[in-house]
Amino acid sequence: MVTSLGNEEEAECFLDIKPDHDFSYHNLPYGIFSTAHSAPRVGVAIGDWVLDLSVLASETDIFSFDASCFHEAALNAFMGQPRAVWTSARAAIRQVLSKGEPLLQEDAALRARTLLPFHNVKMHLPARIGDYTDFYSSREHATNVGIMFRGKENALQPNWLHLPVGYHGRASSVVISGTPVIRPQGQLQADSTDDKKGSIYGPSRLLDFEMEVGAFVGGAPNPLGQPLTMAEADEHLFGLVLMNDWSARDIQKWEYVPLGPFTAKNFATSISPWVVTLDALRPFLCPTSACTQDNPVPLPYLRDPDYASYDIHLEVSLQSAGLPFPHPISRSNFRHLYWTIRQQLVHHSVTGCNLRPGDLLGSGTISGTDDSSLGSLLELSWKGSREVEVGDGPTRKFLRDGDSVVLRGWSQGKDFRVGFGVCEGRVLPAGTKV
Amino acid sequence: MVTSLGNEEEAECFLDIKPDHDFSYHNLPYGIFSTAHSAPRVGVAIGDWVLDLSVLASETDIFSFDASCFHEAALNAFMGQPRAVWTSARAAIRQVLSKGEPLLQEDAALRARTLLPFHNVKMHLPARIGDYTDFYSSREHATNVGIMFRGKENALQPNWLHLPVGYHGRASSVVISGTPVIRPQGQLQADSTDDKKGSIYGPSRLLDFEMEVGAFVGGAPNPLGQPLTMAEADEHLFGLVLMNDWSARDIQKWEYVPLGPFTAKNFATSISPWVVTLDALRPFLCPTSACTQDNPVPLPYLRDPDYASYDIHLEVSLQSAGLPFPHPISRSNFRHLYWTIRQQLVHHSVTGCNLRPGDLLGSGTISGTDDSSLGSLLELSWKGSREVEVGDGPTRKFLRDGDSVVLRGWSQGKDFRVGFGVCEGRVLPAGTKV
Ligand SMILES: [Ca+2]
Ligand SMILES: [Ca+2]
Ligand SMILES: [Mg+2]
Ligand SMILES: [Mg+2]
Ligand code: NI
Repeated sequence: MVTSLGNEEEAECFLDIKPDHDFSYHNLPYGIFSTAHSAPRVGVAIGDWVLDLSVLASETDIFSFDASCFHEAALNAFMGQPRAVWTSARAAIRQVLSKGEPLLQEDAALRARTLLPFHNVKMHLPARIGDYTDFYSSREHATNVGIMFRGKENALQPNWLHLPVGYHGRASSVVISGTPVIRPQGQLQADSTDDKKGSIYGPSRLLDFEMEVGAFVGGAPNPLGQPLTMAEADEHLFGLVLMNDWSARDIQKWEYVPLGPFTAKNFATSISPWVVTLDALRPFLCPTSACTQDNPVPLPYLRDPDYASYDIHLEVSLQSAGLPFPHPISRSNFRHLYWTIRQQLVHHSVTGCNLRPGDLLGSGTISGTDDSSLGSLLELSWKGSREVEVGDGPTRKFLRDGDSVVLRGWSQGKDFRVGFGVCEGRVLPAGTKV
Repeated sequence: MVTSLGNEEEAECFLDIKPDHDFSYHNLPYGIFSTAHSAPRVGVAIGDWVLDLSVLASETDIFSFDASCFHEAALNAFMGQPRAVWTSARAAIRQVLSKGEPLLQEDAALRARTLLPFHNVKMHLPARIGDYTDFYSSREHATNVGIMFRGKENALQPNWLHLPVGYHGRASSVVISGTPVIRPQGQLQADSTDDKKGSIYGPSRLLDFEMEVGAFVGGAPNPLGQPLTMAEADEHLFGLVLMNDWSARDIQKWEYVPLGPFTAKNFATSISPWVVTLDALRPFLCPTSACTQDNPVPLPYLRDPDYASYDIHLEVSLQSAGLPFPHPISRSNFRHLYWTIRQQLVHHSVTGCNLRPGDLLGSGTISGTDDSSLGSLLELSWKGSREVEVGDGPTRKFLRDGDSVVLRGWSQGKDFRVGFGVCEGRVLPAGTKV
């Protein structure tokens, strides 16, 4: 719970926004939307409206920088600006929405062209994702998976506490919330107890979600061969989205040795459409659940002098086909990540990898310490050994056809929220033709 | 050695091209070039010239399709055309270069604008690579690495003969031949015999190359969730380049468990600039070295009824700083791959992954059966246990600063070659600022 907002505290918005609305005047997340009459362009979510930044850039002089990036069908150009431009854009948007500002309040025609009701817009992927990387930064998640597959003694691999383990994912299959997910078919170990017996082809029986948060890279790309430092990290982190890294556990088990997950993960990764900026989340800076990293202390390049996180409540709900509502099955928090997004970014570039605006860094599944805070069905059902209750109704070990998985995330202030909206996807039967 | 060229056999080129030239009249590889006076656009290599397809598209009517894709700074739009367009483009280019065609021969001004000497052009990456995937499809390479790290009994993992093992790589760090490679610094296991002792930060001491061939995806992208079949594969494979998957073995060893290589590989992957089409390589179709896949027979979706490869000679040379020439240290052949590029493509999409034109599929290190055909220093030096002779001069276990690694590849006809040119990169000291 946060009470201080720094110097943004005083202003008020002329729109009426309920205190529990995700898209408060303190949030102002960016997204790409289109309407029946307009091509995809940049907008900001405010209450139940989308503010059309493209129209504002064309018809007003509220922006003190070259705002042509707001006409584009992806946020890459805006994300690629220096942080000072992001800050300037936020100030201009806050001003245009403030009670004291007549520009929209006194011009009904301009207001109608720039404030569009949510139900009239279609959302698109926020960026052309050049590269997508997935980390593995929740100690509880890595420990749980380690215990299941290697036993308690060797749960964490020797490298895990020394670096944020990560791997490259498939950018082409990152999809926007609402995109259905067809149950993947692929190679499954023929006999799950004997890997010498080869494989069969069939639909994944152990389809799972992974509750993650994705960070969008911003700022100028670092040249190949020139690593980013911790001091530069904030200049290169634009904002966050919710992310569901759909995973076929049975396909993964068979294929992932020795080079990592491949077809078990590249069939779909869903993200929420609104990118919540780190500026909006600043009031929710908080200690990580780990508090410190002192056993071991990270190597100097990876030591985060701030070692802080954001207090973002995370929730996974599951809606079974035919049931009217999704039901929460897990509650976690972004602060449970042991490795910060700053550390992920810096480590990603340590050998010289170039990071470009619009690149997506997945946090890894975010699990907490107790059984109600596990970020995947693999963990919730403990590898299928126990049933997960979905409300008073059905139970699950893994996902069934027709299931919808809904992720939510929000930071809670005294009388406002900075929320992410939803990241949702429904499982369609294997072999569905689109 | 190939003698028959099918129905392309009869025509002759009006340009004089030496029989051992990589860029013969039968080759006609595509690339992106610029000059001091012109922006990047599509060209074709022919002998010591680049044929400017952008000028031909603007000023002539030789192309019977919409050739605006040749004005672009990347081959993606052309690669995204159906195979019929690729075939039509090749026929038009062969015609315009043929002895019987006056268009260029009788118009010196047009000839000067369209046939540019190689030394006047600068080459660029041939495509905007949306996603880059690296496979591991040489049985000999996988076996060698397996023996070194797990011993002879468990050399091949249980899944290896059942599917083409692959993993996602980093598209942003794919660079064009000639780009220097800065020795990466990163995390190294502190004590190479005890992974419990943590890590240190420092320059990689075990920097290596991997001799690979990259395949560019073409055709219309398959929709997410709709796998490609073996019958569709040829429509989605555009052409090949040489590829050096630079690898820091010490960083890889420490980081890669359990999710695969990450910072050990994402600092640079070099490719040659000219994309040799599968049409040009068709005369060199040949059996794979394995001849058949019958133990085990692949699952039906992955069974390649043609199970064939291309007879492409591959050579790695190393030029030590201060020495005048590169010296060959390994000779291999593309046909040593156990899994074909058709199988790689189809398996990549088995769970529904969408493949887009311009995506790059690395073959994996191509090693043959004898010691002179190993595709990495890791294997040539057998994990650093023996010195590799570089001509009569120096020896190597791994790469030193100043070393240049030069890959060559070519298919040899009776009196012509279909060659790849070179894929070259020089190692600069750790910490070099660019
Ligand atoms: Ca994940
Ligand atoms: Ca490789
Ligand atoms: Mg995924
Ligand atoms: Mg590489
Ligand atoms: Ni709170």
